[in-house]
Amino acid sequence: MSEFRGYSGKSLSLLKENNAKVGDSIKITSDLTYTGILMPRYESGDDSHIILKLKSGYNVGININEIQKIEVIPSQEIKSEHVEKQKENLSLPKILLISTGGTIASKVDYRTGAVTPALSASELNEAVPELAKIANIDSEVLFSEYSENLQPEHWLKIAEKLDSISNSDYAGIIIAHGTDTMHYTSSFLSFALSGFPVPIALVGSQRSSDRPSSDAALNLIAATKFLTESNVKGIFVVMHNNASDETVVCHKGTRVRKNHTSKRGAFETMGDDPAFIITENKIKKNMGDDFFKNTKYEPKLRLDTKVSLVKYHPGYDPKQVENLTKLGFKAIIFEGTGLGHVGKTMYNVIKDAKKQGIFLGMTSQCLDGSVRMTVYDSGRDLLDLGIIPLENMISETALVKAMWSLGNSSNIEEMQALMLKNIASEF
Amino acid sequence: MSEFRGYSGKSLSLLKENNAKVGDSIKITSDLTYTGILMPRYESGDDSHIILKLKSGYNVGININEIQKIEVIPSQEIKSEHVEKQKENLSLPKILLISTGGTIASKVDYRTGAVTPALSASELNEAVPELAKIANIDSEVLFSEYSENLQPEHWLKIAEKLDSISNSDYAGIIIAHGTDTMHYTSSFLSFALSGFPVPIALVGSQRSSDRPSSDAALNLIAATKFLTESNVKGIFVVMHNNASDETVVCHKGTRVRKNHTSKRGAFETMGDDPAFIITENKIKKNMGDDFFKNTKYEPKLRLDTKVSLVKYHPGYDPKQVENLTKLGFKAIIFEGTGLGHVGKTMYNVIKDAKKQGIFLGMTSQCLDGSVRMTVYDSGRDLLDLGIIPLENMISETALVKAMWSLGNSSNIEEMQALMLKNIASEF
Repeated sequence: MSEFRGYSGKSLSLLKENNAKVGDSIKITSDLTYTGILMPRYESGDDSHIILKLKSGYNVGININEIQKIEVIPSQEIKSEHVEKQKENLSLPKILLISTGGTIASKVDYRTGAVTPALSASELNEAVPELAKIANIDSEVLFSEYSENLQPEHWLKIAEKLDSISNSDYAGIIIAHGTDTMHYTSSFLSFALSGFPVPIALVGSQRSSDRPSSDAALNLIAATKFLTESNVKGIFVVMHNNASDETVVCHKGTRVRKNHTSKRGAFETMGDDPAFIITENKIKKNMGDDFFKNTKYEPKLRLDTKVSLVKYHPGYDPKQVENLTKLGFKAIIFEGTGLGHVGKTMYNVIKDAKKQGIFLGMTSQCLDGSVRMTVYDSGRDLLDLGIIPLENMISETALVKAMWSLGNSSNIEEMQALMLKNIASEF
Repeated sequence: MSEFRGYSGKSLSLLKENNAKVGDSIKITSDLTYTGILMPRYESGDDSHIILKLKSGYNVGININEIQKIEVIPSQEIKSEHVEKQKENLSLPKILLISTGGTIASKVDYRTGAVTPALSASELNEAVPELAKIANIDSEVLFSEYSENLQPEHWLKIAEKLDSISNSDYAGIIIAHGTDTMHYTSSFLSFALSGFPVPIALVGSQRSSDRPSSDAALNLIAATKFLTESNVKGIFVVMHNNASDETVVCHKGTRVRKNHTSKRGAFETMGDDPAFIITENKIKKNMGDDFFKNTKYEPKLRLDTKVSLVKYHPGYDPKQVENLTKLGFKAIIFEGTGLGHVGKTMYNVIKDAKKQGIFLGMTSQCLDGSVRMTVYDSGRDLLDLGIIPLENMISETALVKAMWSLGNSSNIEEMQALMLKNIASEF
């Protein structure tokens, strides 16, 4: 079945008649002539389209009712072309692609039709031949998880892997990653690998590669260009831009959020333009300052997950916070309202938590803008209770930073000092 | 002191010399000639500016170093002008303004210089004289709280007040409200007062009226125009637009969020254009459907606050959910990642919570876009565990709706049916 993966009914019959299998290079004569690789279909779709991945990296869905002819291109022709390319590219910069799972990794592997995240270098180069023209890409599968299943221990594994190659000759590193929690991972790496000598790009895909609208290839190509040409240090998220189908944007790893469930331009830099804008011919730099505030590479690879994110709302039961202290939490990041507020009903439990030495940081559920707790009485009350305003730090970044700060300090004062120090453009 | 509230140093001396008190109508000769009402200063500011509220509703800050002359306009002149206006307006539609507190209410009361939210009809008309030309405004102070201190019992008080006047001759109702939790209140009113016969506008102010950039008057004027001219039913949030200084927008009460801590255009309709765009001469309607899905007025004024909002993240300790069941929570609204996911580490506690009859709803922390749990295995797993996807409902709206649904149903099936029924454009 995997030879025709995802195809059914009429489209399956047509492929069988023509002996065209998923992964084959084929030429389809329709309203136009399309040459590309037959893609599997993973998500439930109709049976009247065939998906072809074009050389441009884009996928196209072709209505089978309009197809006049399907020709399979013999594989020898492609293989030899590919090997030749590999040879030519030995003088190009080296990039390492670390695969962790997610839509981008699992679905790019369409040659086998399997959903496993096997991104070998040769598979990758065959899937996205443009990459081989930009860089020599080594590829390594670290693990294979949807990103909603990634936990802080996975962040650590990625950080340890990166730390182990900090002295290598790679010009940059791509981390193929599910999009759901990509900005949590990018935040952790930003703190843990402060000053890392080469740029790191987390790349995902909002649409699986069997869909005509997939952004997988486009994002990988843009990330590779960015890593080899931009000459900056930092941890970035490189994803499709919303405004234009031709643009990929590069966000600072500590200032980015996934702000839409499904659209390709789901990722946004909060409160600013993206750090870089990547088009086919140009990389535009918006970032003024360095990403890392300290240029020396100083890895700090510990963390402590005893941090809770508390989103305050009317009717919030303060007992929930009381319970956090019982569960042994050492830090609470509040997502307050507006400029950084919680209701008066919370004052007692906050006082108690503070007494027990718990770090209490304030961010805003508005997500954009800065916490400012000196404007209103209620903010000043909270400051008096010992809540630490975290300026414009995104709440998710603050959560990750608190885990990292806890793990890399021996007491609450040290931890607080780390929280308030700008490490990786999080402020 | 209240006669010169907020002024200090040089600006205070200048006002004293000229016998000009807060609330006086004065004429200042500077680079231009400004006529307006002397405003108090509430927030910490310099001592080199005097704030004047112009007739246009805008405030202006005048540098005292450029002031050539300050003249106080005798109060009789203003009073008689005001009384005359009041008479003329008896044929205009009637609007009720209910004051609940917040920046807009507390700071508009600049005549007394006090921070109390005393918005009597006459004070309001004096503060924003344009209002008297559009409508006859009755005014009532319901309570006086910063909105971060508002709790579900305050929502109930507002709803009961509104219900008590559902048969009155008011053309519409303004609720002056702090901005922090305005969208929680608007959501509750949308469900509790389904089908309310006249439009209701929640109006706030992002900048206090003693600041030149205050949007208080502009928002009130726009809301009054909207209520008297738009001829629709519904619960709306009427606030400054971001794009233009002249535009106020009207958001559906169940589809709006405060997305910026401080800027005037902080409120945004999620996933759509605002329902109405209000400029000086025109009200543009974008809303296609009716706000209420049932036209009959059917108040349902109960609620049950035993609902928790759980924002999932990597490293989320499932024990926190375990504790919710111990604390007697009856519903959990998850803010999942991406299309509506939580990690596998949560499956056991979710299973247990479901067994105990707790309602489990899924929204997305992306905030924009729709939850779709059939795309990936992990989403399907969660559906199997009994999690109910809440489509594109905003998480805060889902939280409020769960409180309302719990209060107005006698068992979990009824509650779930209410949650999934589109009451007030929340889907």
